[in-house]
Amino acid sequence: MAKNNDRFVNQIADINSDYTQWYTDVCIKSELCDYGPVKGTMVFRPYGYAIWERIQAEADKRFKAHGVENAYFPMLIPQSFLMREAEHVEGFAPEVATVTHVGNNELSEKLVLRPTSETIIGNLYSKWISSYRDLPLKLNQWANVVRWEKTTRPFLRTSEFLWQEGHTAFATAEEANADALEMLDVYKEIANDVLALPVFCGRKSEKEKFAGAVATYGMEAMMKDGKSLQSGTTHYLGDNFAKAFDVKFLDKDGTHKYAYQASWGISTRLIGAIIMAHGDERGLCLPPVVAPVQAVIIPIGAAKNEQVSLRAKDLYCALERAGVRVKTDDRDSSPGFKFNHWELRGVPVRIELGARDIEAGVATLCRRDTGEKFTAPLDGLEERINTLLSDIALNMFKKADEFARAHIVRVSDMDEMSAALDGGNFCDAYWCEDRACEDSIKQKFAATSRVMHADQSDVHEHTCVCCGKKAKRRIYFARAY
Amino acid sequence: MAKNNDRFVNQIADINSDYTQWYTDVCIKSELCDYGPVKGTMVFRPYGYAIWERIQAEADKRFKAHGVENAYFPMLIPQSFLMREAEHVEGFAPEVATVTHVGNNELSEKLVLRPTSETIIGNLYSKWISSYRDLPLKLNQWANVVRWEKTTRPFLRTSEFLWQEGHTAFATAEEANADALEMLDVYKEIANDVLALPVFCGRKSEKEKFAGAVATYGMEAMMKDGKSLQSGTTHYLGDNFAKAFDVKFLDKDGTHKYAYQASWGISTRLIGAIIMAHGDERGLCLPPVVAPVQAVIIPIGAAKNEQVSLRAKDLYCALERAGVRVKTDDRDSSPGFKFNHWELRGVPVRIELGARDIEAGVATLCRRDTGEKFTAPLDGLEERINTLLSDIALNMFKKADEFARAHIVRVSDMDEMSAALDGGNFCDAYWCEDRACEDSIKQKFAATSRVMHADQSDVHEHTCVCCGKKAKRRIYFARAY
Repeated sequence: MAKNNDRFVNQIADINSDYTQWYTDVCIKSELCDYGPVKGTMVFRPYGYAIWERIQAEADKRFKAHGVENAYFPMLIPQSFLMREAEHVEGFAPEVATVTHVGNNELSEKLVLRPTSETIIGNLYSKWISSYRDLPLKLNQWANVVRWEKTTRPFLRTSEFLWQEGHTAFATAEEANADALEMLDVYKEIANDVLALPVFCGRKSEKEKFAGAVATYGMEAMMKDGKSLQSGTTHYLGDNFAKAFDVKFLDKDGTHKYAYQASWGISTRLIGAIIMAHGDERGLCLPPVVAPVQAVIIPIGAAKNEQVSLRAKDLYCALERAGVRVKTDDRDSSPGFKFNHWELRGVPVRIELGARDIEAGVATLCRRDTGEKFTAPLDGLEERINTLLSDIALNMFKKADEFARAHIVRVSDMDEMSAALDGGNFCDAYWCEDRACEDSIKQKFAATSRVMHADQSDVHEHTCVCCGKKAKRRIYFARAY
Repeated sequence: MAKNNDRFVNQIADINSDYTQWYTDVCIKSELCDYGPVKGTMVFRPYGYAIWERIQAEADKRFKAHGVENAYFPMLIPQSFLMREAEHVEGFAPEVATVTHVGNNELSEKLVLRPTSETIIGNLYSKWISSYRDLPLKLNQWANVVRWEKTTRPFLRTSEFLWQEGHTAFATAEEANADALEMLDVYKEIANDVLALPVFCGRKSEKEKFAGAVATYGMEAMMKDGKSLQSGTTHYLGDNFAKAFDVKFLDKDGTHKYAYQASWGISTRLIGAIIMAHGDERGLCLPPVVAPVQAVIIPIGAAKNEQVSLRAKDLYCALERAGVRVKTDDRDSSPGFKFNHWELRGVPVRIELGARDIEAGVATLCRRDTGEKFTAPLDGLEERINTLLSDIALNMFKKADEFARAHIVRVSDMDEMSAALDGGNFCDAYWCEDRACEDSIKQKFAATSRVMHADQSDVHEHTCVCCGKKAKRRIYFARAY
C-alpha cells in the first residue's frame, strides 16, 4: 500500500512522449516549486530556492569582481515614469500591475509594480550623477518583478519572478555598449561553468530587442525539444533613458552631457533551463555547482547492522569536512524507493553503503548523469567524490553541447526551415534584416529570430531564407519558450 | 572653494540638540540611503545595502543551523485571505496596498501586496502538511513587504521594507511556543554579537501583540534619546491561522489535528538601530561585523613620496589576505577631508600612513569608537587590526549596554514615570495588566508598554504604576519609534 503510493509520488510523464507534462511533473514532484493561489504565481519550495541561492552566490561574486555594487530600489513606480520613454511604455504597459488603493483610500497617483527598473533608477541616477567623477556608476539589485503573462509555466513565465537587474551609467556610448557585451560574457561564464549549459550569444533583432534599448544582446539555451530558452539579456540603452530622466553630467571639457547606460538581467528562469536542458526520463539532473545536495548516502540494511550506520556517519562527516554538500537518507523505506527519490531530484552522486561494501572497504557509487555504477575505496572517498563532481559538471556540459551542435541545421529556404523546426532544431539562417520576414516566419512556423551568429563573414554570399533578397545577417531562428 | 563644498557635504546636525535631523543627515550624507520618488519609499544605496547583506548572511547561517530552510512565496495575496483571520485583517487592512488592474483590465479578485505572509503561507501549508511526518516544518523567506505608513523615516518606517519572515508549524502548542522563544534568543544573539546591541527581550502586552497571534515576544533596543526601537518580534500563533487555512495533519494516534504555528521577523529597521544606538557627533559608528569597510588606509603625502603609496599597497594586500574588509582612500583631497569622510561613514579603524610613519616602521591607527589615536608596528599589523576590530565590537556593546543600564528608571507612580520619560529613560514599572492603564499612559505620555521584564518574581508586592491596583506584571514602558 505505502509502496504503491510511494511509486506514484515519484512517477513522472515520459520525457519523449510528453515533454510538457514531464516538465510540470519534475517541477512539482521533485518539490522544486508549487503553484500559488493566484493564477500565474508560483512558490519556490526549499529545494528550488536553494538552487537559486547558489546561482545568486555564483553570479553575485562575478558581478562584484566586475566592479558592480548592490543596491535596492523601491518596487512601486509612479505610473507617469513608465510613460516617459515611448517604446518602454508600449512594451510594458499591457502586462503591468497597478496599485490604486491603500486601505479604503484611492491613491492620488497610480503606482505600478516594477516590471523592470530602468525608469525609477533613471530618476535616482539624475540625482546622484552630476560630474564625470560620478561615472561609471554600476549598480545591481536582486529583486522580485511583476509582469502579468497570459500563459504561465513554473520558472519559465510567472506573473512574479525573481531576478537581478544591473544598471550602469557611463560618460561615453562606447563604454556603455562595451558593458552590455562584457556582462553577456559574464552570463555566458555563469551558464557554462555554473549551470553546465552551452549557450548561443549575440545581438537580437530590432523586433526582439528590449523596449527602450538601442541594442539588446541575448543568451539563448537549447532545450531537449530543440526550442530555445532566452536565458539572459543585456541592453545597450544609449542615452534614451538619460534623456527621459535627465541623467546629465558635467564633463571634463566643461560641457553638460547625457550619460549612456546599459542594463542586464538573469532570472529564476535559469532553473527552468537546468531542468529542461539536463533532465531525463528519471527526472532532474542537477549541475554539481548548484545542486543543493551533491551526494546522498544510502545505508543498505542499517537496521540489521550497526556497522553500516556507524560507517555512514563517518563518511557523512568526512564528506562534509571536504566541502561536499551531503545528505544521508536513513528513512525507513526501501533502497529502491530512495534511489528513485534522489534520482528524480537530480542529486549528482549516490553513495550506497552496505555490509558487503564495508567488508571490502569500499562504497558503491552511482553517477546521476550517466547512470554508471562502480565501487571506490572508502579510504580517501571524499577526494574521489570531489573529483567525480568536477567530472560530472564537465560531462554534463559536453553532453548538452553535443546535443546542441547536433540540433543546428543550416537552412536556405522556408521548406528547409519548416523541416528543421519540426525536427526539433535551431535554424542557422541568412536574413535580409526586414521585419516582414521575421513576421512571416513567426506566422508560418511560430518561430522567432533568436540571436545573430558570431560569424557574419560570409553573409554577403547568401540570400534571405524567407524572401530570397540579399542577406544582411546570419542569425538563428527557433521556436522559443 | 572645493574645500568649503567638501565641508558642507560632510556636515551633520548636532546630535545633542537635534537628534531627529542628525539621524536624517547621517542616513543621507553617509550615503546609506536616499528617498524614493513615491512618498514614504526609500532607496538602499550601496553602503546601506552592504550592511543589510552582512546582517542577512549572519542571520541566515544562524537560521539554517536552527533547521530552517529558505523558500519564497508570492507577494500578491488574494484580498479574501486577509479576511479569514479576524484580528489579522483588522490589524493590517488600513495599511494594505491593493492591486486592482493589470494593463487596462480590472482583476476579478483584488490582490494585496503582502504586509506579512501568514495567510498565503497558511494556504500552502494546508497543501503540504497532511501527516505528523511532515512536521515540524520550518521555512523562512527574505522578501520585501509593503505597509503604508502615514509618518515615515528611512529604515525605521517606510511603505516598503526588506525583512525575513520565518513561518513554522508543529504538532503541538508547546513546540510552537518554544520555537517563538528560541528564535527570540537567536535574534538576541544577532543583536549582541553582530550589531553590538544590547536588547530587552520579553513578552509583549495583549495590546501590543501581532494581529492574529496568541502571544508576541519582542526585542527592544534603546536609542540614544532613551526611546525604544522594536528590533525584532516572534509570535506564537496557536492554531489561529491553522484553523483559518485548514492546516491539519493526521497524528500518530490516528486523529486529525490542527497544526500549531509560530512566525518571526527582523528587518532593515536594524540598520536604523545601528545608526541611533552607536552614532555620535561625527556620524555613523559601525559595528565591525557588519561594517562594509572595516579599515580605511589613508596615505599621507603619497603624491610627493612614492614609498608611501607602495607601502600603502602592501598593507592593503596584507589586510585583505587577513580577511579584513579594507579600502585605500587615494583621492586627491586633504587628509582632514578624508578623516571626516570616513568618520561620518563609521569605518571602525583608520590607518594613516605617512613618510615619518614608514621610517619608524609603524602606522598611525585611529579607533572610530573611542577616537583614540596610536601607532602600531607595520610588521604584523594585520593581526593587530583583527584584534582591534574584536576589541571595538566588545567596547561598542559595553558602551551601549552601560548607556542602557544608566537609562532605566524604576517608577512607582505616574509622576515618576513622566519625569523618567522626559529624562530620556525606559521605565521599569509594575502594571495591573489592564488595557485601560496602557491607554492612559499612552494618552498622557505618548509612551507604550514594550516588553515584560525577565524577573517577575516580586510582582505581587507591588501596585500598578497607573491605577494603583494590585500589579500583575513587571514591564518596561517607553516612548518608541
